[in-house]
Amino acid sequence: MIDSSGLRYDAQGLIPAILQDHVSHEVVMLGYMNAESLRQTLELGQAVFWSRSRQELWHKGATSGDYVRVHEIRTDCDSDALVLQVELLGGAVCHTGAHSCFVEPDGAAPRLVGSPSA
Amino acid sequence: MIDSSGLRYDAQGLIPAILQDHVSHEVVMLGYMNAESLRQTLELGQAVFWSRSRQELWHKGATSGDYVRVHEIRTDCDSDALVLQVELLGGAVCHTGAHSCFVEPDGAAPRLVGSPSA
Repeated sequence: MIDSSGLRYDAQGLIPAILQDHVSHEVVMLGYMNAESLRQTLELGQAVFWSRSRQELWHKGATSGDYVRVHEIRTDCDSDALVLQVELLGGAVCHTGAHSCFVEPDGAAPRLVGSPSA
Repeated sequence: MIDSSGLRYDAQGLIPAILQDHVSHEVVMLGYMNAESLRQTLELGQAVFWSRSRQELWHKGATSGDYVRVHEIRTDCDSDALVLQVELLGGAVCHTGAHSCFVEPDGAAPRLVGSPSA
């Protein structure tokens, strides 16, 4: 599926959206968008995802207050991934309360799989 | 599908892998790994993906010389995404020759979808 802007969605109509903190440059979350959530994100200037678990549009922060301001959206060479430069208006993006989904709930340690070249 | 390390793969046995330059912190590529490519990545210390287009293991750089050294691999709160801190041994990661897939082939301009809060 290719939308009017040339983006390529997968068989479920989704495109992965990488969230990167626009100041620290930390990658804080990977979410998924469909064309409608991307449209709403561009309109609101806040991240709106498609929740794969709940199968519904998900305006991030609507429940938690942790809204995500979106400054810029880029795509890649084959138009099937997005990188969003974001500002965490509530300071957190993870359901654990951590600022990033890629750290432990206390926010201090990475969720490490391995350090092959360390 | 959940592997021995607790990672969750999708129905195709894949997990998305975000590549971030370990010095510049730029997000340069989104690839996909299966359990075997992740095993090889950890063993080699170089990125090995699953090519969805060719349906085969893909040791990045084996053809182009643009190998990707992997310093660290993290996962997220629900163990279904990876962030790799990488070093682009050939200077480029994109098939266009650019250092990143999220910039135009000349490497200068972003592949912009929108700047909602600019």
